[in-house]
Amino acid sequence: MSQALRVTVWNENRHEQKNPKVKEVYPDGIHSAIAGFLQEAGMIAGTATLDDPEHGLTDEVLAATDVLVWWGHLAHGEVQDDIVSKVRQRVLDGMGLIVLHSGHHSKIFKVLMGTSCDLKWREADEKERLWVVAPGHPIAEGIGEYIELPQEEMYGEHFDIPVPDELVFTSWFEGGEVFRSGCAYTRGSGKVFYFRPGHETYPTYHNPAIQRVIVNAVKWARPVRRERPFYGNAKPLEQIGGK
Amino acid sequence: MSQALRVTVWNENRHEQKNPKVKEVYPDGIHSAIAGFLQEAGMIAGTATLDDPEHGLTDEVLAATDVLVWWGHLAHGEVQDDIVSKVRQRVLDGMGLIVLHSGHHSKIFKVLMGTSCDLKWREADEKERLWVVAPGHPIAEGIGEYIELPQEEMYGEHFDIPVPDELVFTSWFEGGEVFRSGCAYTRGSGKVFYFRPGHETYPTYHNPAIQRVIVNAVKWARPVRRERPFYGNAKPLEQIGGK
Amino acid sequence: MSQALRVTVWNENRHEQKNPKVKEVYPDGIHSAIAGFLQEAGMIAGTATLDDPEHGLTDEVLAATDVLVWWGHLAHGEVQDDIVSKVRQRVLDGMGLIVLHSGHHSKIFKVLMGTSCDLKWREADEKERLWVVAPGHPIAEGIGEYIELPQEEMYGEHFDIPVPDELVFTSWFEGGEVFRSGCAYTRGSGKVFYFRPGHETYPTYHNPAIQRVIVNAVKWARPVRRERPFYGNAKPLEQIGGK
Amino acid sequence: MSQALRVTVWNENRHEQKNPKVKEVYPDGIHSAIAGFLQEAGMIAGTATLDDPEHGLTDEVLAATDVLVWWGHLAHGEVQDDIVSKVRQRVLDGMGLIVLHSGHHSKIFKVLMGTSCDLKWREADEKERLWVVAPGHPIAEGIGEYIELPQEEMYGEHFDIPVPDELVFTSWFEGGEVFRSGCAYTRGSGKVFYFRPGHETYPTYHNPAIQRVIVNAVKWARPVRRERPFYGNAKPLEQIGGK
Repeated sequence: MSQALRVTVWNENRHEQKNPKVKEVYPDGIHSAIAGFLQEAGMIAGTATLDDPEHGLTDEVLAATDVLVWWGHLAHGEVQDDIVSKVRQRVLDGMGLIVLHSGHHSKIFKVLMGTSCDLKWREADEKERLWVVAPGHPIAEGIGEYIELPQEEMYGEHFDIPVPDELVFTSWFEGGEVFRSGCAYTRGSGKVFYFRPGHETYPTYHNPAIQRVIVNAVKWARPVRRERPFYGNAKPLEQIGGK
Repeated sequence: MSQALRVTVWNENRHEQKNPKVKEVYPDGIHSAIAGFLQEAGMIAGTATLDDPEHGLTDEVLAATDVLVWWGHLAHGEVQDDIVSKVRQRVLDGMGLIVLHSGHHSKIFKVLMGTSCDLKWREADEKERLWVVAPGHPIAEGIGEYIELPQEEMYGEHFDIPVPDELVFTSWFEGGEVFRSGCAYTRGSGKVFYFRPGHETYPTYHNPAIQRVIVNAVKWARPVRRERPFYGNAKPLEQIGGK
Repeated sequence: MSQALRVTVWNENRHEQKNPKVKEVYPDGIHSAIAGFLQEAGMIAGTATLDDPEHGLTDEVLAATDVLVWWGHLAHGEVQDDIVSKVRQRVLDGMGLIVLHSGHHSKIFKVLMGTSCDLKWREADEKERLWVVAPGHPIAEGIGEYIELPQEEMYGEHFDIPVPDELVFTSWFEGGEVFRSGCAYTRGSGKVFYFRPGHETYPTYHNPAIQRVIVNAVKWARPVRRERPFYGNAKPLEQIGGK
Repeated sequence: MSQALRVTVWNENRHEQKNPKVKEVYPDGIHSAIAGFLQEAGMIAGTATLDDPEHGLTDEVLAATDVLVWWGHLAHGEVQDDIVSKVRQRVLDGMGLIVLHSGHHSKIFKVLMGTSCDLKWREADEKERLWVVAPGHPIAEGIGEYIELPQEEMYGEHFDIPVPDELVFTSWFEGGEVFRSGCAYTRGSGKVFYFRPGHETYPTYHNPAIQRVIVNAVKWARPVRRERPFYGNAKPLEQIGGK
């Protein structure tokens, strides 16, 4: 744990090019904003975007990534399947994955979950309050009883995901819905955390409490140092049939 | 619950054609053996096999199936992707799915789990003892503390699956391994149960306790009668912003 | 499953004696209202109250109870510890237990959970909306996407319970809180379901959707028919040390 | 995480006084052996025993303990109830608790679990193999696919515990049983880990892999730094009824 975590923040980076409002909130892109506060937390954080060669996720980058952060929305379909397969394999081999907001519909999240990952949604500048429902979870470290966001996109239940291994946050929305907004999973030797907030037109990733959750989540998702299990034909460890 | 459950037992049905030993154990195929005891339990049980048109899983058959039982091994790759997609959608919409033995590597199970579903294995005519670890689970109804099978194929940990929502059985093997051998999941509105035993060369599906588990699992996996949730853009249920 | 379930509805029955408003809503007591709709659902439902000898929970009553429903509030401390012990043992032996509303602070619930079972609360005639977060769960059968209660007491997170084995409902409250309001557990061979709504001054148990949930929960919690496991010193099932 | 963890290792310390064989294996008591390797791992580890005043668990000691390790067997009944209550409250407030071996029947474990915590057992000098079933769990860091102990007491299923929040190890025993031997829970703001091995007559706590698991478990169980939630009557965060 003494070594700095190596994080890659992946962003589709399209809204920032198209929508002046988003550009204003995140002048250097959502990826840079997130990488910035991860670096301030002592991590080695690089970025990668959809339009980079191989989406910026070359074998070298993936091999040198302890935890991958994912933000995508408009262009999930443009992410190449072979890159998704490589990312998935890295997760099964132990790399952590933090999926943010509209990443619920990314190929990588859906393939790891096995479900549609559908939900209800609404853009109405409404209040969200994320309640901590797992008070002893390391992802909630330093967070009060809830995080209040004055304006966010609404995501509502039913959220079509497998039952989370650990549910850390549940959101209240002004318009009357609730949402499981902080969901932890293991897949293979890797850990996955889905964190709901972060609509591109709001300054959500500038919120210190939101930043703290993402920092905590990256730490929680770090790879555990052990060999991946052996799979396949196995010799017996004990005599069989008295032979 | 008063209506008879409609079950479709799907079998690859290849070992039975190629291997006289398997033919001897299951003269009419594994599917017929399983459908037989499900019928005796009062269910309406049909069969479907890989070599049937559309693998026997037409839209009509799937629409009329409450619970699908799946046995495959040699020819997972021959199952058409569009059929897998339809089965997956039916599970998300509420159809139950019971995956048996080597079905752990079937396309449908892997796509619903999101992991490799790899494991250790060995064919050595060894003893398996399946211990009940969830004594109040309906799938264990009528079962003693364990089921002992004198000869089975070994499957050993690590079994690369998501953490089961409910773990019902854990196996002990003579050669020194353990295995999570009865694993319950929900996916969308549907339920999935993986049950380990059933290597084709052993008379496992003639064992009354194994039959009882499968009957119980089918009952447990029956669709719950309610509308599938609505997903997509949603109007607020409450006033937002005092407006 | 062909035999009628035998349910005992236990109620403290004090508010009904003291508060005319409660008496008006539940003229024969909350226990009678609940037993009434369970009987309409085909169950054999009796009642028991705090002021009955042995609180109405004699050995005979408990032995003949498949599922016990519990409502208490003012007088948790008056429930005798030896009765609590007997109920707990019956749960571990397989009896189902449905704990309603303020029963979160009952001795029997706290002793089975191991935590404080504390929560936030408020009486402000506010709206509650219970969202189904487990769409395939049998306790949600026949229920829409949510149940709306125009006026209820608020219970808010953090609710100090162990992580539920299955989370079926999550509540939205008008005042800004969320709550895990339908929580399923197993304890020993028995099942426990906590269901939040039911403040004594509101006609919550007259609501058909609430009634349906309780009927479903009782069915879900029915004892599974198998022998309780053996505990204690055990002879080996296999030779040890080649001896 | 930069500050050294403060651990208190509690031991009943009776076998060591009565049984020369145990004295030979643990000349300074099991508590000293465990505290020793925790100190080598950089922790501040003190000890406390049953016969110390207040069992060595004074308010001062508990307040200065991040994680408490518990070993008991013969004299569970001699542990004072008020000390158990204090320890329980500290766990709910965030202190970690590692319960070892025969501690499954300790008052503190049983009161936090809510079940009987009964199991099968046998002393027959038999082999135990603890398989890692959660390959990405931090408690398994640095551990191979399994830990093999040449001789241990057998504990067998059914183990009457609540379903673990996380199951890290499952044991194979030579005599034919399996056991959930590494079980993680949260209770309130605290974490609890039960770890099976450690019969007093075997040198189990001298095994480097067992030591590693306990070191990992203590790190995993460290308190998360945040305020404990507020419980009780709560003012609304939003206007109710348009008022």
